[in-house]
Amino acid sequence: MQKPTLYTCLSPSLLRLYDVTGSIVVIIDVLRATSTIATAFSNGAKSIIPVETVAECIRLGKQMDAITAGERDGQIAEGLSYGNTPFQYTPEFIKDKTLVLTTTNGTRLLHMALADGAKSIITGSFPNLSAVCNYLLSQKQNVVLACAAWKDKINIEDTLFAGAVISRIKDSFSINCDSSQIASSLYNEAKPDLFEFMKNKNASHYHRLMGFGCEKDIRYCLSEDGAPVLPIYREGQLVNL
Amino acid sequence: MQKPTLYTCLSPSLLRLYDVTGSIVVIIDVLRATSTIATAFSNGAKSIIPVETVAECIRLGKQMDAITAGERDGQIAEGLSYGNTPFQYTPEFIKDKTLVLTTTNGTRLLHMALADGAKSIITGSFPNLSAVCNYLLSQKQNVVLACAAWKDKINIEDTLFAGAVISRIKDSFSINCDSSQIASSLYNEAKPDLFEFMKNKNASHYHRLMGFGCEKDIRYCLSEDGAPVLPIYREGQLVNL
Repeated sequence: MQKPTLYTCLSPSLLRLYDVTGSIVVIIDVLRATSTIATAFSNGAKSIIPVETVAECIRLGKQMDAITAGERDGQIAEGLSYGNTPFQYTPEFIKDKTLVLTTTNGTRLLHMALADGAKSIITGSFPNLSAVCNYLLSQKQNVVLACAAWKDKINIEDTLFAGAVISRIKDSFSINCDSSQIASSLYNEAKPDLFEFMKNKNASHYHRLMGFGCEKDIRYCLSEDGAPVLPIYREGQLVNL
Repeated sequence: MQKPTLYTCLSPSLLRLYDVTGSIVVIIDVLRATSTIATAFSNGAKSIIPVETVAECIRLGKQMDAITAGERDGQIAEGLSYGNTPFQYTPEFIKDKTLVLTTTNGTRLLHMALADGAKSIITGSFPNLSAVCNYLLSQKQNVVLACAAWKDKINIEDTLFAGAVISRIKDSFSINCDSSQIASSLYNEAKPDLFEFMKNKNASHYHRLMGFGCEKDIRYCLSEDGAPVLPIYREGQLVNL
């Protein structure tokens, strides 16, 4: 039997080059949208509605009496109460709640994949790495690993996560994709200590978040399986599969 | 004194993210446009006119009584006499001649950089690696390493060349660019044997060109300093600086 294909898209600007219509698209925004999404579900969130703009976030939050959160340029967006740090989303805060979320890169990419007709969409991050890999292995469908990047510029951390997924599931997929090979190589170099790797390479988003005092966030977002859930997009919202 | 900046752009689709107006842009199309360009100059070509379309190539070739060459999808383009293999451009064939050249990725990227207002444009490939590095070190200006990729998909070989340049000149530049770090890491892994690396990773363009029987081309295009010249774009054509 022919193996399903796997491609890695390292920037939203490149998404149009990949056929997502028959694929599971994994949205990857390691620092910090998809890590926060996994954490919120792991702590009992009922659903998360990703929206593109702050205005829509506020409007929908009022309408649904939901928690509204989001960031722009790495900080809490003006007009919103909560940001993008996974540590905000404790069980006490988020259990059984609906979260309306907007972020600089991740939520935008999710809407791009939707607009392009993605067959299904899940979100991936180190805190839910194993859940993502197990799901992709079980589905036996084509996969596009879609990195949110930073304002379309390729970043190290999302590339590393793509590489981590590939290193675990590559034998079950047909991979004819240089970006996947590049991600894989990078992850193999980094995996002894992802945090040290980000630091040594002076990764641009590492640098940005350290400037905001977010070392704890970075360390958590680079740790595997702290939030072992599978967020999947269904009818306008992410739910915990 | 502040060091000039260096950025790496891994696909033409991302070029708009980088400010090329104050920068030297290095056009990188390792397999095979920029390797062929360096080789043709090294063997005495007078000038090379990069054009975007096959029709323009034919028209201009007639008008100037020049050699016309080009490829589409890795093979000689229909209507043109010569392709994109560096071994075509021997001194007997190319000395003192003008070459009008069109290729799938490299010549298109050069025109994009021109349209974006690049301060100056040179072409880079392993056969002229040292010449490129020495020039960039001597100019002390901002640099954008621009990979031609394959129909906008990031490829291993152009990324490797960017990494090779960075590994040689990084101490003289300020590099706050994840793509440059990724290229650098990839090159460090690959440098013991670039050909074996391309083979082991089943690089997509390695695979494509091997299918056309071009192993000799690939080996040459991955070898350093076989054509130690510096092609620079001036008034509509590339000349040997």
